[in-house]
Amino acid sequence: MSATADRTRDTVRAYHRARFRGDVPAAARTLADRFHFDSPLMASDDAEQHLAGLDMFVAIVERVEVISELFADDRATLVYDVHTTIPVVGIQRTAEHFRVSDGRITDIRLIFDATPWHTVMRAIPQP
Amino acid sequence: MSATADRTRDTVRAYHRARFRGDVPAAARTLADRFHFDSPLMASDDAEQHLAGLDMFVAIVERVEVISELFADDRATLVYDVHTTIPVVGIQRTAEHFRVSDGRITDIRLIFDATPWHTVMRAIPQP
Repeated sequence: MSATADRTRDTVRAYHRARFRGDVPAAARTLADRFHFDSPLMASDDAEQHLAGLDMFVAIVERVEVISELFADDRATLVYDVHTTIPVVGIQRTAEHFRVSDGRITDIRLIFDATPWHTVMRAIPQP
Repeated sequence: MSATADRTRDTVRAYHRARFRGDVPAAARTLADRFHFDSPLMASDDAEQHLAGLDMFVAIVERVEVISELFADDRATLVYDVHTTIPVVGIQRTAEHFRVSDGRITDIRLIFDATPWHTVMRAIPQP
């Protein structure tokens, strides 16, 4: 791998570790000022908004099993299984694609089957 | 990239092209004898079974927009949007993770949000 790809790897791994231990400041440090996120359930152009609610997510994560990591100079993909404590969700197979520039993440596309989450969300009383 | 990663790239691209033009024999040539596939909707340990029904899938694909490709010696990830002709499905963001050995694909994990497909399947009369 090139030195740039090494740096991309360090940034993406730092983000991943921080996210799953619920460390918002550490995760925020890996994100660029201009940042975009999307997933089957939400989208955001704001790093702070993206990391809000991380506590709630981490609370339902039992462990994360990394299946594969691939790094290039300006991009990376992680594939992993999130073992959750929510029976209807169970193990969430996830792919996460990153764009990285100057050692910071500019774009995240999270891909997973959101089917069980619709059941979960219907069970939560709406304000 | 190493020569092995180059070969992995050629194999994965050949599979991807063959799949989206519905060319079952060409796709089959890229798959190893021992092969595993899983997706949110199905799993298979058989290359022939995996490729059965490809015609039906290709019929609803308008075009494929590749977002990112990443290749290593023994693995690869493609991220792409499948533009479908089914309004309720629309554009299907997809990640596809491959394991490759000796120039043939041994394992595919397809990741996408299957939510709209449950609606489609409910609309199909069951025999």
